[in-house]
Amino acid sequence: MTSSTAGLAGVVAGHTGLSTVGKEGAGLTYRGYSIEDLCTFGSFEQVAYLLLYGELPTGSELSAFQQRLRSKRALPSPLMVALEQLPASAHPMDVLRTGCSVLGCLEPEQQPSEQHRVSERLLACLPSVLLYWYHFSHSGKRIDTDGDDESIASHFLHMLHGKSPLESHQRCMDVALVLYAEHEFNASTFTARICASTLSDLYSCITAGIGTLRGPLHGGANEAAMELIDQFRSAEDAERGLLEMLARKAKIMGFGHRVYKKNDPRSDVIKQWAKQLCDETGNKTLYEVSERIESVMLREKKIYPNLDFYSASAFRCMGIPTPMFTPIFVLSRVTGWSAHVFEQRADNRLIRPSADYTGPAPRAWVPIEQR
Amino acid sequence: MTSSTAGLAGVVAGHTGLSTVGKEGAGLTYRGYSIEDLCTFGSFEQVAYLLLYGELPTGSELSAFQQRLRSKRALPSPLMVALEQLPASAHPMDVLRTGCSVLGCLEPEQQPSEQHRVSERLLACLPSVLLYWYHFSHSGKRIDTDGDDESIASHFLHMLHGKSPLESHQRCMDVALVLYAEHEFNASTFTARICASTLSDLYSCITAGIGTLRGPLHGGANEAAMELIDQFRSAEDAERGLLEMLARKAKIMGFGHRVYKKNDPRSDVIKQWAKQLCDETGNKTLYEVSERIESVMLREKKIYPNLDFYSASAFRCMGIPTPMFTPIFVLSRVTGWSAHVFEQRADNRLIRPSADYTGPAPRAWVPIEQR
Repeated sequence: MTSSTAGLAGVVAGHTGLSTVGKEGAGLTYRGYSIEDLCTFGSFEQVAYLLLYGELPTGSELSAFQQRLRSKRALPSPLMVALEQLPASAHPMDVLRTGCSVLGCLEPEQQPSEQHRVSERLLACLPSVLLYWYHFSHSGKRIDTDGDDESIASHFLHMLHGKSPLESHQRCMDVALVLYAEHEFNASTFTARICASTLSDLYSCITAGIGTLRGPLHGGANEAAMELIDQFRSAEDAERGLLEMLARKAKIMGFGHRVYKKNDPRSDVIKQWAKQLCDETGNKTLYEVSERIESVMLREKKIYPNLDFYSASAFRCMGIPTPMFTPIFVLSRVTGWSAHVFEQRADNRLIRPSADYTGPAPRAWVPIEQR
Repeated sequence: MTSSTAGLAGVVAGHTGLSTVGKEGAGLTYRGYSIEDLCTFGSFEQVAYLLLYGELPTGSELSAFQQRLRSKRALPSPLMVALEQLPASAHPMDVLRTGCSVLGCLEPEQQPSEQHRVSERLLACLPSVLLYWYHFSHSGKRIDTDGDDESIASHFLHMLHGKSPLESHQRCMDVALVLYAEHEFNASTFTARICASTLSDLYSCITAGIGTLRGPLHGGANEAAMELIDQFRSAEDAERGLLEMLARKAKIMGFGHRVYKKNDPRSDVIKQWAKQLCDETGNKTLYEVSERIESVMLREKKIYPNLDFYSASAFRCMGIPTPMFTPIFVLSRVTGWSAHVFEQRADNRLIRPSADYTGPAPRAWVPIEQR
């Protein structure tokens, strides 16, 4: 038996060809391409193709892929009826988890050879699941999810607001989807791989990933970051409040990372977008508060913001309700999760660790009347 | 970084006070009590209480616990409507996964202090979820899930067959539920703990556990064992067929275990029950075929049956359809999963391992027209 550190920190639990996280000098790459290049020159659809199929698409591969995704946006009626049963008070992550699970009953993955079909279906229709439920539960409206927007970013924003998004919003959302797509053996991805290692189906793996991402120590951090920022009315107020929180050792969400010891390369990208959208929408205070929180954290704790921190400001500028921040993470990460499941399946061994036993020594049965 | 073996085999990923699996001289114990004692003198409700609350219940604690469980069997209407959307062709594991997820939307766990309430609710109503869907999808019948059977074993068999079960069937089902309740850091439990480690909610953890248990390398093995047994018409036929399967290196389900190197102590218990029920129901061939498979596997491969193998025969004798075998595992294991989530939460650190990178070296962006 090998002993290990708590939380498997630094323990190599397998191998992956999908991404490098914080490797010496390499920053973050997806299959060798830097996220800076992918954000600048690529698109989320190209990244999704790269993750799911191994290489960047040619022009004709990309247009066929986008066409398939567009054709898979509509929801089957039984799924719509199921979503209509979920109250407006439900957590949108619970709704996505449920929608994915229901779809697994309606359109099951019968064979692993169907894995690409299923991953494309989920990629195409999870935004529909989220927004069909959102509009029905909040205003009783049954929206048409079968729009013909070219990109997933645009389809999402269009369904949310009921109109075509501004070009800059569409671009920023596209970049956010690229940045959230894949991140090695994080908790939700590792969960999806363990699920896959029992030879379970892809829907089960993704459902498990969504449930795991939901936690505030993982994907839930972007919502928590927004709540933090929302507490303050000015940069000075943020400085005062944050110092007070640090003094009482409160956990500051959106900062630090298990793997990145310095800056999160994704944060640098999304911060520029947050600045641009704050400028465009006149959200001066939002950006000033965010920057001040960043500088206080760096000065006082030497901790850098992670992707979740400036995503919050960017999402706010696009008019996205805070409870939808973590769901956006899902709409993107479904690509990374799927690719990890494919990788696990291609060289599988059941993931089943051991535990140190810390419970009672063997003890004799005591009849109930003697307890 | 610590390197590790594939599948984390033998890697200690944490500690637990819940069970010993294959520890020297200790066989399988739940919180120190041997499963032999728990099966002989206890009941599934006592075991559930032991796992969820830490000690065996007193008489009054047990009756209050059973009373609470009985009062939580009915399903909320929106859950019934959602279940009615799932076709008869759906995998019952997918139905349970969905039912658990829907309930998490309807009756969320708002605070960790609600964890015992939620675990009792799931323990009480997952049999209702399974059988409400089963009868509705197969015969259009909306059954009443709110029966007053004393035990979960009896409630399940009563809803399945529409009549009170024979005493021996109820006892055997109770024993099967005891045996399936808890088993240390197996894949589904580890998944539930990772989910918990992000501070996600209990429904997400159990949903992830169900999806992971579904795979044929895990809970799905009891269904696969039944399919194996069903291929043979006699002990001689089984001997011939099995030798032929071994010659072509086919995987034989229901045998061997990652941790137990010799016999699975649970198999010894369920085998006696399988024999008794086969005798009572006149299923002579079923038992003879099962025993012959066991002896051939021991003689040829020195591999012992695990719990899943003789469970299959026992479940068949009780008239349980094969696709419900793994779901029965869920109805029991929800106790072990919940107890592990409680344990993880009480001393939490995010479970986030690392990976060896085996992908492409950093590469430059290639414009789409040059690919």
